[in-house]
Amino acid sequence: MKHVRSIAEARPLLRDLWRSGETIGSVHTLGALHAGHAKLIELAARENQHAIVTVYPNKIQLFPGSRYVYDLEADAALARASGATMLISSEDAEMFPPGYCTFLDQLERHRALNSSVFPYATRGQVTGSIRWINLTRPTRSYFGMKDIEQALLVERAAADLLIDCEIRHVPCIRYRNGVPISSRLVLLPQARKDEVGATYAALEAARRMGLGGEARADVLTKAMATLLEERLSTFRLVYATVVDAGTFQPVTEARLPFVLHVAITDGAIHHFDGLAIRTEDELERSPEVLWLD
Amino acid sequence: MKHVRSIAEARPLLRDLWRSGETIGSVHTLGALHAGHAKLIELAARENQHAIVTVYPNKIQLFPGSRYVYDLEADAALARASGATMLISSEDAEMFPPGYCTFLDQLERHRALNSSVFPYATRGQVTGSIRWINLTRPTRSYFGMKDIEQALLVERAAADLLIDCEIRHVPCIRYRNGVPISSRLVLLPQARKDEVGATYAALEAARRMGLGGEARADVLTKAMATLLEERLSTFRLVYATVVDAGTFQPVTEARLPFVLHVAITDGAIHHFDGLAIRTEDELERSPEVLWLD
Repeated sequence: MKHVRSIAEARPLLRDLWRSGETIGSVHTLGALHAGHAKLIELAARENQHAIVTVYPNKIQLFPGSRYVYDLEADAALARASGATMLISSEDAEMFPPGYCTFLDQLERHRALNSSVFPYATRGQVTGSIRWINLTRPTRSYFGMKDIEQALLVERAAADLLIDCEIRHVPCIRYRNGVPISSRLVLLPQARKDEVGATYAALEAARRMGLGGEARADVLTKAMATLLEERLSTFRLVYATVVDAGTFQPVTEARLPFVLHVAITDGAIHHFDGLAIRTEDELERSPEVLWLD
Repeated sequence: MKHVRSIAEARPLLRDLWRSGETIGSVHTLGALHAGHAKLIELAARENQHAIVTVYPNKIQLFPGSRYVYDLEADAALARASGATMLISSEDAEMFPPGYCTFLDQLERHRALNSSVFPYATRGQVTGSIRWINLTRPTRSYFGMKDIEQALLVERAAADLLIDCEIRHVPCIRYRNGVPISSRLVLLPQARKDEVGATYAALEAARRMGLGGEARADVLTKAMATLLEERLSTFRLVYATVVDAGTFQPVTEARLPFVLHVAITDGAIHHFDGLAIRTEDELERSPEVLWLD
């Protein structure tokens, strides 16, 4: 695996790759890679002749004042072990030169869901992802369904902007207690991690009610909120909602495709969890999960 | 020259082109091609192994209710005669499928200059141009300096979004009376065309004042406005302004790089004209013009 430490250095190597006509899979990260990223990279490497990983703690996506710790050499080691053939990293000065001003706007979608807590975070995620897709021109780019909004909005943006790239949605990766892999949760003691698992239980309870014929969004929302209020102790509920999977606007009736989404916080850590129910199969069997032991 | 009548049909042909590693020049148009487009296409064909022309009367760029007349077969003939190797056209149903929602936002820049007359026109132009650049992945894409905002903002957007494409600015093409080639002006009687030439005279007068040491924007603006008010009879002045070439915000002092910009209207036709003065050379000799007889 080649580690390229700037966009400028990556450009000629990428041009050679494109000319080869060989397939490229890409995984775009903020660094601090974990087993979830490893799954994405493994899939990219399995389905394509080249697997490019990018590492850059996107400052338009991260939140002012928050510290984002990552170790580029450790990330490179994980990427290599997972099958990456190229790692591209960059710095703020190259990514945001003076005069930078271009963002992707997807109307009200960026202000839905977790934007009530983190305004513009989703806009930053989508803009950042599309920038890296433009740079690398992958045949397929891999996004985990842990971040449902990002996966669905990047897919929408790539199609709308006529980018010739398949956006692959990779199932959310969860521990057996239901908690998704997340660099933010990893430092919590086990009991608090188990508490966070209540979000998945709440989402699954609502999905089963939907499968049983309950389509009223207020009933599903109430059920998720009640379950979370019972189970949470060190965290508290921020919201539980049912939204349209295309617009992310709250619905009154849960009709396919829809998203069940909840947010909890302890004041410092904000945790979001959701299920994108796009098909009868996902309603019946729940969206696929990659389980970790 | 191959005329491809949909994005879907163009994709596999473009993939073959990319794999060839040969250079591609692109010219993106709304149709109704004229001698100005011909110059862009000729340059694209001269500087690259392939010259791709796109024709689509972008509905997010054109104005609701306005009728845009173009003859696709005539456009194809002009493109072929100018050296194009491929023409791609499309339809609203393919370009704006249900759920389309992605636009490029460049902060306040889209609301500067001609947006006071046509809100969102520039955003539509830039989004439309970047979509076609993404589709065709040209080595170089050609934009006329008649539309200064579009040329500068597309260049900014391509760089910001890490798109590997050189944005080439082609000099404005003018008749000897100073009037730029424009499909909107072509039907005017000669006397009214000559009247429109006053905009270039006003811009040039302000540039010469700048060259002579006058940097106060209000003095330059006043000079352009006075000249236009004297010379216009069937048109009237909408604005004359001096803006920063990066942000398009009005300045108090004209320092390189800046844009002199004027707008006139007769109520039906809105005509914009400008000079982008980016270098000492452009201040001294005026931005290059391609003169037509």
